[in-house]
Amino acid sequence: MVDDEFTIIDQYFSAIGWRSDLVALGPGDDCAVLKVPEGFELCVSTDTLVSGVHFPTDCDGGMVARRAFAAAVSDLAAMGASPYSFTGALTMPGIDHTWLFPFSSELSRLSVEFEIPLVGGNLSRGELALTFTVMGLVPPGQALRRSGASVGDDVYVTGHPGDAGAGLLLLAQAGGEFPALIDAYQSPQPRVKIGQQLRKIASAVIDVSDGLLADLKHLTDSSGVGAKVDVNKMPLSEEMLLFTSPGKALSLALAAGDDYELCFTANHSCRDQVEELVLSAGVAITRVGSIVDTPGIALFGEGVDALDLEHNGYQHF
Amino acid sequence: MVDDEFTIIDQYFSAIGWRSDLVALGPGDDCAVLKVPEGFELCVSTDTLVSGVHFPTDCDGGMVARRAFAAAVSDLAAMGASPYSFTGALTMPGIDHTWLFPFSSELSRLSVEFEIPLVGGNLSRGELALTFTVMGLVPPGQALRRSGASVGDDVYVTGHPGDAGAGLLLLAQAGGEFPALIDAYQSPQPRVKIGQQLRKIASAVIDVSDGLLADLKHLTDSSGVGAKVDVNKMPLSEEMLLFTSPGKALSLALAAGDDYELCFTANHSCRDQVEELVLSAGVAITRVGSIVDTPGIALFGEGVDALDLEHNGYQHF
Repeated sequence: MVDDEFTIIDQYFSAIGWRSDLVALGPGDDCAVLKVPEGFELCVSTDTLVSGVHFPTDCDGGMVARRAFAAAVSDLAAMGASPYSFTGALTMPGIDHTWLFPFSSELSRLSVEFEIPLVGGNLSRGELALTFTVMGLVPPGQALRRSGASVGDDVYVTGHPGDAGAGLLLLAQAGGEFPALIDAYQSPQPRVKIGQQLRKIASAVIDVSDGLLADLKHLTDSSGVGAKVDVNKMPLSEEMLLFTSPGKALSLALAAGDDYELCFTANHSCRDQVEELVLSAGVAITRVGSIVDTPGIALFGEGVDALDLEHNGYQHF
Repeated sequence: MVDDEFTIIDQYFSAIGWRSDLVALGPGDDCAVLKVPEGFELCVSTDTLVSGVHFPTDCDGGMVARRAFAAAVSDLAAMGASPYSFTGALTMPGIDHTWLFPFSSELSRLSVEFEIPLVGGNLSRGELALTFTVMGLVPPGQALRRSGASVGDDVYVTGHPGDAGAGLLLLAQAGGEFPALIDAYQSPQPRVKIGQQLRKIASAVIDVSDGLLADLKHLTDSSGVGAKVDVNKMPLSEEMLLFTSPGKALSLALAAGDDYELCFTANHSCRDQVEELVLSAGVAITRVGSIVDTPGIALFGEGVDALDLEHNGYQHF
């Protein structure tokens, strides 16, 4: 049997994951056809991960699926949208069944977990790279933008940013002692449910893909404001503090990417609601600063002068 | 100024093309947000073109934009959908302004011509490749599928398939004598308006990307039928017949890809409607065969035994 595009798609991708009643016609025709429930707006985002740039060249297919899925679905979380559908375009140098099997298995598992059907795809020969386009639904006018932050708003971050960056360092050193850190890099959790809850709380939201400071700066630039961040408030995980020095841990938390946590702002009158969200979501949400008039991100707190923040967020080029 | 992702996006992509009232929030946030007009279904398709695989490595950016756009929007045409929005994910080895300028200019022109806004994108470092995800709107239940062909239906094709394949041969030979053939390869025309008209005529539609025989076989396989094609009915352009022998011309028309014409089936009671469509669209639409019980594609007509159809449609792997 020839390993042509159609055979591979049939073998690995036809049976993937979540079955949605909204899919009138699934993959296999020129387009998929989706029903659109009334009373929603459509959120759309596209993301590419390239081997050797966004993940190590020796990554197994399952890990690539998890990271690419998280990067894509995290953008829906950051808008407060509920997952609707996604497409995947995969280029690979040749058919590698040991890579494709865990890739499609993990993608199928995630599709079910997040209730988002795969409605189309493309398979081409080329350098290993993956582009996901995700679609989500949100009530009209309620999408959470980056541009809504106001002076005086609190700045929050979910989870423990920096853990994924530490995990990447550990993988490069072939270290296996800190499974939670490696897991943060290999299996980031898009904060979809928290994002939807934030529609009634947050004034602005962004997901942390390039590093907290870099992404918070995108948020404040979009909002025409700045932020000050108390570095001593930054949430550092227990494993992170066992892994490295407090200074290095803080640098990772502020500047390393790949966590796909949410950074958001909210009026200080919403502090009780954020507390309730922490309890219902079972995820840490930490107030780390506030929005100010002055553009840019100002850091303060003990040890701030010793921080190594040269790589202030990931530059794609 | 650093040529980082954001600078390049701002320079080349922020001002692209068509402005639609349906775009509530354009590119630049975590997702774009689109209004969804009531009473439509959403068609979605994703396509990747890789340098050296789907187009020659020395293609200028304008040609890559045109071919990738046609490949993507042609899938909307094949569903009878009207263009709604699209996203683009570009990977390139480094910033090449002489490539990016014509690429973004042509993309902007096409976006306006087809009234389809660019609502999101991604720019990454990697081998030159481009993934477009297109979205279209179609009245509920009216999307044109591949699976609707019935025994006895006529088989039609738009335009002059094979011209693009001839153009690719000419480009490889650096020949410049047949501008219409080269143009068919460099600037294929997605048949969007014809596709929408076919909603009231066609029983099944596919766009011809892999070659007429290969794509007609996808259509008949999906429909659980076969087709017979009278090779003497195949439309061959004047330039094609000047360029090569009748036999070679016919082989290209049957088996070469890249034209993005539409191949469709229709009940024979629709022949007058197809004639009217030819007049209103100003594009050749030729009846080349009919749908039969026996699976597969049977060719008949004078000269059929001498045809070189070894490369019966493009195999991606």
